[in-house]
Amino acid sequence: MKVINDLYDYENYKIVQDNEVFKFSLDSILLAEYVTNLKQSDVVLDLCTGNGVVPFILSNYFPNKIVAFEIQEYIVKLAQEGIKLNGLDKQIELIHDDIRVINNYFPGNNFDVVVANPPYFKYHESSLINENENKAIARHEICLNLEDIFKVVKYALKEYGIFYLVHLPERLEEILYLCEKNRIIAKQIQFIYTKGDKNATMVLIKCIKNAKNSVKVFAPLYIGDYKSYKNIFRG
Amino acid sequence: MKVINDLYDYENYKIVQDNEVFKFSLDSILLAEYVTNLKQSDVVLDLCTGNGVVPFILSNYFPNKIVAFEIQEYIVKLAQEGIKLNGLDKQIELIHDDIRVINNYFPGNNFDVVVANPPYFKYHESSLINENENKAIARHEICLNLEDIFKVVKYALKEYGIFYLVHLPERLEEILYLCEKNRIIAKQIQFIYTKGDKNATMVLIKCIKNAKNSVKVFAPLYIGDYKSYKNIFRG
Repeated sequence: MKVINDLYDYENYKIVQDNEVFKFSLDSILLAEYVTNLKQSDVVLDLCTGNGVVPFILSNYFPNKIVAFEIQEYIVKLAQEGIKLNGLDKQIELIHDDIRVINNYFPGNNFDVVVANPPYFKYHESSLINENENKAIARHEICLNLEDIFKVVKYALKEYGIFYLVHLPERLEEILYLCEKNRIIAKQIQFIYTKGDKNATMVLIKCIKNAKNSVKVFAPLYIGDYKSYKNIFRG
Repeated sequence: MKVINDLYDYENYKIVQDNEVFKFSLDSILLAEYVTNLKQSDVVLDLCTGNGVVPFILSNYFPNKIVAFEIQEYIVKLAQEGIKLNGLDKQIELIHDDIRVINNYFPGNNFDVVVANPPYFKYHESSLINENENKAIARHEICLNLEDIFKVVKYALKEYGIFYLVHLPERLEEILYLCEKNRIIAKQIQFIYTKGDKNATMVLIKCIKNAKNSVKVFAPLYIGDYKSYKNIFRG
């Protein structure tokens, strides 16, 4: 059922969701919060925008132009409603298409910053059987896999442009392999933990196109230590 | 000056060192401690053994045959003296040669476990100017770089054999790129921190040859929390 919710504790922001199909997650909030240093002229691309949560949070901090792609028709409608409710028609350009054909919309080396909260899981036949189709496409690499993501990022980013990614630690080797292969160099890695003795549950990565290799692995972040994630990376 | 020291808190173990040339480090101790599950029949290869600290610690826990390579003549002598002092002539086979010619000594797919504490830093011309030559070779990729390491590991390990590596977090992307490229798949990653708010200073990685991709990133380990590193991963 479609509902209009408050967007977490971002005052006055609304988000349109559907419990059975698509809800935003903490992962998207942390991804948007991890983008801490946009310049006013930076043009931003959000690869898998879902119902628009990442652009909405970015717009809370920055006036930048944000281009957001979403492939699923029903979810595009949720994002469109959210954009209207939040009065963000001028700041956010929503494109209903497969991000892999971005070259039909924009030339290469066009964006200063790209962000992505892509599908996390490898695609197996069973993915579609166990879940609603919209959910399966958002969670599994049915329409888009990691290799596609990096191909698009490499195409879209300007020289020394920045890529922010949220993903599962389980996929770290595959992610950093593609970083190195495409020269989208990981510069900062932030692991997210729930409890002190448990494995990391999430990873945030900041990459710079064609930068010099050298990664900083930050002190762990325990999400349970925070009541609000707003400004969590802004000291 | 050459001296004979106690090997940390491993009772009765001695280690032969030279303050100006080569001393063992915490990194080697943690690497050896990270090898927690050798089977009695496993044959172990230590790629850059230095003065032998990793084989000595392994011998404290396991009776396994250990082959150890070291390229530097003077450091081989330190290791040889240590082997005699500790009565390990039968367990440890020390080879004075470049690990890249391992095929002159052993067939492929020969080892169950490979461990490595390789040179950490990329080689720049200045490396040799600022340091004693022995130190420079142990610390910088003058004789051996990451690509060489992975080529040797791929050659030496049996199918599903295990590779344990200690290195700098700064090199993580290059390391995991080579893991993926050579199908020496990272299965466990342990970051080491000194203080709660500082970046990771060390990384321990356990890989399995030709395993399925999926990495566990463990809870952080703060070395300041421990008085002894003995049994640190055997909890």
